[in-house]
Amino acid sequence: MGRAHRESYGGEMSTAASMVFYCLVFIAEILMFGVLSLVLFWVVHYRGGFAWREDVKLEFNYHPVLMITGFIFCMGHAMLVYRLFRCCNKLTAKILHTFLYLLAVPCIVVSTIAVFDSHNLRDPPIPNLYSLHSWLGVITIGLFGLQLVVGFFSFWLLLCCEHGTAKFRAGLVPVHATFGIVTFMLAIATAVTGYTEKALFTLKDPETQKSTYSELGNEAIVINTQAAALAALGILLPVMVAVRPFRRRWSERLTEHL
Amino acid sequence: MGRAHRESYGGEMSTAASMVFYCLVFIAEILMFGVLSLVLFWVVHYRGGFAWREDVKLEFNYHPVLMITGFIFCMGHAMLVYRLFRCCNKLTAKILHTFLYLLAVPCIVVSTIAVFDSHNLRDPPIPNLYSLHSWLGVITIGLFGLQLVVGFFSFWLLLCCEHGTAKFRAGLVPVHATFGIVTFMLAIATAVTGYTEKALFTLKDPETQKSTYSELGNEAIVINTQAAALAALGILLPVMVAVRPFRRRWSERLTEHL
Repeated sequence: MGRAHRESYGGEMSTAASMVFYCLVFIAEILMFGVLSLVLFWVVHYRGGFAWREDVKLEFNYHPVLMITGFIFCMGHAMLVYRLFRCCNKLTAKILHTFLYLLAVPCIVVSTIAVFDSHNLRDPPIPNLYSLHSWLGVITIGLFGLQLVVGFFSFWLLLCCEHGTAKFRAGLVPVHATFGIVTFMLAIATAVTGYTEKALFTLKDPETQKSTYSELGNEAIVINTQAAALAALGILLPVMVAVRPFRRRWSERLTEHL
Repeated sequence: MGRAHRESYGGEMSTAASMVFYCLVFIAEILMFGVLSLVLFWVVHYRGGFAWREDVKLEFNYHPVLMITGFIFCMGHAMLVYRLFRCCNKLTAKILHTFLYLLAVPCIVVSTIAVFDSHNLRDPPIPNLYSLHSWLGVITIGLFGLQLVVGFFSFWLLLCCEHGTAKFRAGLVPVHATFGIVTFMLAIATAVTGYTEKALFTLKDPETQKSTYSELGNEAIVINTQAAALAALGILLPVMVAVRPFRRRWSERLTEHL
């Protein structure tokens, strides 16, 4: 292990850094719970709630709710686990991080099934994977899957040879963290294109079929507020994960259960 | 200056890291020049080219071209300057970084004027700042302005008291870099919502006014490809800036002209 790796360049968080950090945690929690509540309120109050294949229009509503749950709520919390649980055992934080990441998987899978169903089972069917929202979605899900597979292989399976792989795993941590932030930001980019599509497809005058989005009615504000909250999370979470005073000490990051 | 600050934890790039890095530079350049060429090709070939206030529909075309020039091409290159010009004087890299950042300013200003004109001078006028694209745009431009002001003040004006402010400036570097990456990613998120709006507003059957986006004609592919290239840049650039083996040495990052 190199000389630099033995160095702590940040140490424990200072009191000032702690205060700023926990203020940011508070805001991030409000935003994450807020955006989840708002997407639920939106689909239930404005979009007719949920159904499965008996009503494919309502089946679609699982798509935004579960994607926000998986990619924003679960992944956002998974990203924060290592910064939040500083006092407890590193392995506990790692199990929680993995659990939250795995919890996102069924959300993403069911959400993807719901959107394909809501296209394929319509009469006439709506084509799949034509919009840039769907292209970005494929890229984001691909990155998410890659992170899951590489992360699981490197940080769990390679523990079978704990000491031999410690250096490799330590080197992979910042790469895994960077790709995690990138996946989260791409998920936000994909989500906001989805909201744009939905706003332009559905906010219409029922008679003239002209878009009423520009009148900024209640539903338009609910949609835009979700996008603004996602943008705020897109600023907040990378800062909380990446900025040095909020990070763990090098010495902590290099324990055997990394 | 703290003990940790005197440590180099990465050193010069290894040969392997150099090879990977310059491969990534090559791909990033293809993507940045590619997306700029594609947006120019798109507005000239499919959207009728450019005009100023004599034809506000064509004035709008400055908006995507100049926003991509400012937020993606100039800012993307500005982000890479410190990683690319490792051999030359740090001050030269800093001047180039500032120059590229400042070059983005007129692009963003003219682009914003163009979009407001294209709304206000229509008959009837189109409302401003209703869409989530515009909300995200306001957030992104705000962050860009904040970075510019804080960066200019901290990394140029504070040089008037070079030694007294060295520690503060050194501490600000990773915060400035993180916010830079976040601004770039939010610019991408904003851009893809803009492309989505444009695709849904313009790709229509001229007679029935029904959307033809799902037929994935040539223009739809040109639009989606720009979004995919932006997503690829959104993966590539943060990795090139943030991953440790590609970074400058601590010792280099703490020269007096930081």
